[in-house]
Amino acid sequence: MLCYQMRILATSPSGINLPANMVCFGWMHQTPALNSNSEIPLYRQLFEHIALQIRSGELAQGERLPATRELAGQLGLNRTTVSAAYELLETEGLISGQVGRGSFVTGLPPESRAPESLQHAAARDRAGHGPAPLARVNWHSLLQRGDQGLSAQAAPMGRDAISFVMSRPSRELFPLDDFRASCEAVLTRHDLADILQLGSPSGYEPLRRYLLDGARAQGLATAGDDLIVTNGCQQALDLIARTLLRTGDVVAVEDPVYPGLKSLLTGMGVQLAGIPVGADGIDLPQLERVLSRERPRLLVVTSNFQNPTGATLPLASRRALLHAARSAGVPVVENDAYGELRYEGEPLAAIKQLDDQSGTVLLRSFSKVSFPGLRVGWALGPKALIDRMRHAKESSDLHTDQLSQAVLLEFAESGRLAAHRACMLEAGATRLGATLEACREHLPPGARWTRPQGGMNVWVRLPEPLDAAQLLPRAQKEGVAYLPGRYFAVSRQDAGALRLSFAGLPPERIRQGLAILGRIFAGEVEAASLNFEPAPAMV
Amino acid sequence: MLCYQMRILATSPSGINLPANMVCFGWMHQTPALNSNSEIPLYRQLFEHIALQIRSGELAQGERLPATRELAGQLGLNRTTVSAAYELLETEGLISGQVGRGSFVTGLPPESRAPESLQHAAARDRAGHGPAPLARVNWHSLLQRGDQGLSAQAAPMGRDAISFVMSRPSRELFPLDDFRASCEAVLTRHDLADILQLGSPSGYEPLRRYLLDGARAQGLATAGDDLIVTNGCQQALDLIARTLLRTGDVVAVEDPVYPGLKSLLTGMGVQLAGIPVGADGIDLPQLERVLSRERPRLLVVTSNFQNPTGATLPLASRRALLHAARSAGVPVVENDAYGELRYEGEPLAAIKQLDDQSGTVLLRSFSKVSFPGLRVGWALGPKALIDRMRHAKESSDLHTDQLSQAVLLEFAESGRLAAHRACMLEAGATRLGATLEACREHLPPGARWTRPQGGMNVWVRLPEPLDAAQLLPRAQKEGVAYLPGRYFAVSRQDAGALRLSFAGLPPERIRQGLAILGRIFAGEVEAASLNFEPAPAMV
Repeated sequence: MLCYQMRILATSPSGINLPANMVCFGWMHQTPALNSNSEIPLYRQLFEHIALQIRSGELAQGERLPATRELAGQLGLNRTTVSAAYELLETEGLISGQVGRGSFVTGLPPESRAPESLQHAAARDRAGHGPAPLARVNWHSLLQRGDQGLSAQAAPMGRDAISFVMSRPSRELFPLDDFRASCEAVLTRHDLADILQLGSPSGYEPLRRYLLDGARAQGLATAGDDLIVTNGCQQALDLIARTLLRTGDVVAVEDPVYPGLKSLLTGMGVQLAGIPVGADGIDLPQLERVLSRERPRLLVVTSNFQNPTGATLPLASRRALLHAARSAGVPVVENDAYGELRYEGEPLAAIKQLDDQSGTVLLRSFSKVSFPGLRVGWALGPKALIDRMRHAKESSDLHTDQLSQAVLLEFAESGRLAAHRACMLEAGATRLGATLEACREHLPPGARWTRPQGGMNVWVRLPEPLDAAQLLPRAQKEGVAYLPGRYFAVSRQDAGALRLSFAGLPPERIRQGLAILGRIFAGEVEAASLNFEPAPAMV
Repeated sequence: MLCYQMRILATSPSGINLPANMVCFGWMHQTPALNSNSEIPLYRQLFEHIALQIRSGELAQGERLPATRELAGQLGLNRTTVSAAYELLETEGLISGQVGRGSFVTGLPPESRAPESLQHAAARDRAGHGPAPLARVNWHSLLQRGDQGLSAQAAPMGRDAISFVMSRPSRELFPLDDFRASCEAVLTRHDLADILQLGSPSGYEPLRRYLLDGARAQGLATAGDDLIVTNGCQQALDLIARTLLRTGDVVAVEDPVYPGLKSLLTGMGVQLAGIPVGADGIDLPQLERVLSRERPRLLVVTSNFQNPTGATLPLASRRALLHAARSAGVPVVENDAYGELRYEGEPLAAIKQLDDQSGTVLLRSFSKVSFPGLRVGWALGPKALIDRMRHAKESSDLHTDQLSQAVLLEFAESGRLAAHRACMLEAGATRLGATLEACREHLPPGARWTRPQGGMNVWVRLPEPLDAAQLLPRAQKEGVAYLPGRYFAVSRQDAGALRLSFAGLPPERIRQGLAILGRIFAGEVEAASLNFEPAPAMV
């Protein structure tokens, strides 16, 4: 759900200077902020505004929309623009036009509606409202037991907004010419036809071999290990879950944790045992308690620059974690999507590297350090597990896209990845520095935050009684967005927590954004102290 | 498992002139057929031979391999070639070298071994054989409950073999220049950086819009429908399964059926209710019985050129199937990976198109008509279902690779896909014609086969008592391969059945291959008639 929400944030049209009341009231009574300089066509911006109002319930079923001519006049738009927006709304099933009467809101999309009961349908039929739909497929009931995902709560924001929301690299830093050169090289390869042909669930063999050789050279892979190429770390997590877990199993995870993992596991009916993450990573005594009491089937842990906290597990803790997991016979999944992005300090040995008992599987990816739109990651672990993941991979999608595998191999083998990584490290260091400095400068007294040595995320805790989720709409109105802690919480709700993903923003935007956030948060601290009244004694 | 097996078939080194006894006996007592003209290096060919012998158990644990010098002499190879092969075997954990003693087979990879019991480990420890491994992760037991996949049974064959095994387009027909031109166009797009950035689980919006508009223009999409881009039809099936199914559910499927569906569903613990497929598609009375008796949660059906039978469901049967499914309130998944490949006759309305009650989801793909190495397909269906599939997609792998989505959109929008499809239709018609003609000419009396109007597969039934699986090794020895019916069987075993996938072979190879198969099958018919002895009465 996270990405979907981000997509809305990134593409929705309203500008950063959105009137403060626009988010709160139906736009039909207000002028929507349409941006004619946007890459998004005006009709589509208008469509999205109206669709949002309908989906949020602010425009209720049965409400009549203004005539296209009338609305065009009100908004200073071409009438065809409004017609196109209405047409799209109709295609999406959100409104319906009636000849000579105008357009009406037909209501919410099907999944939000209560299912029509059979009696109801029969009554409707008897009343002559058309043929009986037999036992029409009841999607509502069929879908009820599935994964509902996290709900997207953030209001739409414009392209000019300062968004700390996405833990992803900056598109402005993509080395487009190097990417083009890598593609060109692939297009002249003698095995191009093989790349386009159906491939292996293990991955494009030259890439798989390159990654495995690299892992061996780094002392990460043992003789009994194998490697499978996946669609990024997310799919590696999914394949492991499919291979090892069943409904009702317990999995030990970090708390707070990457929402993609939380959503994957809870969607499968797996129970999460959250282990607190501090500045030095996972809480080891707590881990030992969970391992002995909850008997989890798996421990998923992030060794470097954890998402969302940015915490890195010290070497001694890696050894202790490994010992604890081994004593309990619990396999370790080492999620290391961010490990390549260390801006300061010495790299630490991976848990996988420290494990001489073949109990660890290591997940890595090209996504954070190069192009996330190309979905290529990998899992390295004991052959028995990788074999089974290959079966699961085949059932999932046969194999990972080969064009992107070949392009990324070329990007890496040509040295372009290393050159790009150097740029990413420089930019990342600057952005991280700017974030930490701006936190010091702007966050109110009592606020605390992590000081990562790499990655893309800083974790902030606001002083009590501030609630990061409650304050988000105010920040958004001023053009700044972040993710509140609740997206990441397993069992410990931390109302004051929020994640700042800094990697996508240039330093001056980071400073601007934190200045705005600091002002809002400080104002709230002040308001809270004024409103504070000691509770009277209960008599 | 299917693809993995195919990969072995396609890349393993032994030539078509393999000595007849080579497959049956350990090569250590025979000369392996290494091909120095192959693109596969000799050391790798040798490695694969030995690895196969170890994995099949023909070389047992503890057996000593000849010294590299000795084997090099025997085989007329460079000693470094043999050393490289041994090194790879050691890296894979299949052999282990002992200084001064030589190399020994260490046995099967971990998953084939029985797990070491704790007592055993303790006893070993007491005997002083190294430190106790604590409660080392027991992968064997952890993996026992997972999906085992289908087992790959076919022996390795050379590149020169005539393989009817893969239902995929011919790599020789790939329009490489058109593909290159499409990539070049994408590389100059103004939104290239957006393509490389993290995308939406719904798909690359310009492609999604193109596909949805196309579906609307064809009358396939209703107002309440939505579309999600997937990694081919296999992932669409997977997302539907994740969204709608749980362990123990029953799903109605065709019998025989596409093995990728069988393996996906059984891997999830879903029960299959097989409905026989005849020349005219699924058996409707049997379908009705299954719908009423087994109360499946889903019906998965192929409207056009079913894999493996090639059968197409006539229009009247589509309507009847829809009526039956609707009466039972069971959603229909219409798998239409092959629909674009009709070589003769008029296209029929899709089940999705006939369904005015929103009970059908339609799956299509670029894979069969363009480049299967680019994993892009889509699902079109009721918005409520597609919404939920989007959540599942996000948990699976965030989104489909965007480079390939953009390239395929360009390939389609530029008209190159239509031009290529015209070539595919011409080649497909010729190849299908050659297959049917060669069946008539070469298959023994009593053999029957389907006569598809499109797609990639013909289904053959050999006369009794011939067993297609038993005869496969003989065919392979003569350089021809096919898939026996058992790979596709749900509940009806059909020993005489086999699938001929003809799309990847030029007509002359099809004729050669069927001449060889015809000779083997005819010889077997003759032998069976000579060996026939009526069973004596039991007294």
